[in-house]
Amino acid sequence: MEEFMHDQPLVPREDAEREALSKRLRRIEGQVRGIQKMVESDRYCVDILTQTSAIQAALKQVEMQLLERHMRKCLVHASETEDMDPYIDELMTIVSRIKK
Amino acid sequence: MEEFMHDQPLVPREDAEREALSKRLRRIEGQVRGIQKMVESDRYCVDILTQTSAIQAALKQVEMQLLERHMRKCLVHASETEDMDPYIDELMTIVSRIKK
Amino acid sequence: MEEFMHDQPLVPREDAEREALSKRLRRIEGQVRGIQKMVESDRYCVDILTQTSAIQAALKQVEMQLLERHMRKCLVHASETEDMDPYIDELMTIVSRIKK
Amino acid sequence: MEEFMHDQPLVPREDAEREALSKRLRRIEGQVRGIQKMVESDRYCVDILTQTSAIQAALKQVEMQLLERHMRKCLVHASETEDMDPYIDELMTIVSRIKK
Repeated sequence: MEEFMHDQPLVPREDAEREALSKRLRRIEGQVRGIQKMVESDRYCVDILTQTSAIQAALKQVEMQLLERHMRKCLVHASETEDMDPYIDELMTIVSRIKK
Repeated sequence: MEEFMHDQPLVPREDAEREALSKRLRRIEGQVRGIQKMVESDRYCVDILTQTSAIQAALKQVEMQLLERHMRKCLVHASETEDMDPYIDELMTIVSRIKK
Repeated sequence: MEEFMHDQPLVPREDAEREALSKRLRRIEGQVRGIQKMVESDRYCVDILTQTSAIQAALKQVEMQLLERHMRKCLVHASETEDMDPYIDELMTIVSRIKK
Repeated sequence: MEEFMHDQPLVPREDAEREALSKRLRRIEGQVRGIQKMVESDRYCVDILTQTSAIQAALKQVEMQLLERHMRKCLVHASETEDMDPYIDELMTIVSRIKK
């Protein structure tokens, strides 16, 4: 299990924020289920691949939203009182994975 | 709605093939649900981002499996009797989306 | 050194094709030199990163052009007389690298 | 022309740093020239595509190095006296381009 600087964000998420993220994730969950149905009804490969690209793009948006929120809230909050280097270690690990 | 060359693969998938793909997709669906729970319990952003990267990687594997199968079965089958250019048009659209 | 199916394309490139590719590559070479000058004059990191993204995008275009040409010429030519599987092995290696 | 927060890094690069970056960029420049020769001698497409992937990987390393340096030096320096939001705007633009 990977270790992180915190269990929770330094600045807790608002309810509205959490609900917006959950809504996006529920939609992505539905898209993944949709692809399962396409596979079960033996749909054409390129058709299915078009849907997996749509899910990748939706997930990328969630990632960018999470990353931006982390920098604007947690990183800025940490910068007021803490050494930022360990936070930047975490960020570089995330960015190098996201860029793949 | 995007138009494709076919509704079904030129060479139907075996049951075992469909089951293996469905199994992977069910696991990805579970991972997406897992992230929803992390958001609802306001888990640390970097922790969640580590999980979204894992889903992206799992989806990429499904994509590569679908793409390879499409080339080895549908493309080869088409090459025996048909003009391959429209199939290559489709492939280039898919590859340019996958590379994002 | 990696082994490939051929040393030369199955269908030789036209002079005009080669010249168009070389022209793009010369421009990319110039962009790389431009970044060296930015580094030597200690330009702002984000400014330099904007230029490296431009080079990545230009290289991606060259890659898509080479890949499409390979499929439309070499793959189609091979499909008339040869077993396509080894060509698809090569293609999957390339696509998995391009998608990174 | 895109506007940036600064013309130069908030913390100037050391000579050794600049030389190390320039050395990497000179090597990449040489690789691009190498590909031009491959195109001129009409080398096999997949062979050339293997080389373009190597250049993309080398450029990605330069990008990660520049990004990390920017965060550890400029971002941390700015955080001591300035509002970080405009710097995070810049970072998000860069990361969304790098992830492509």
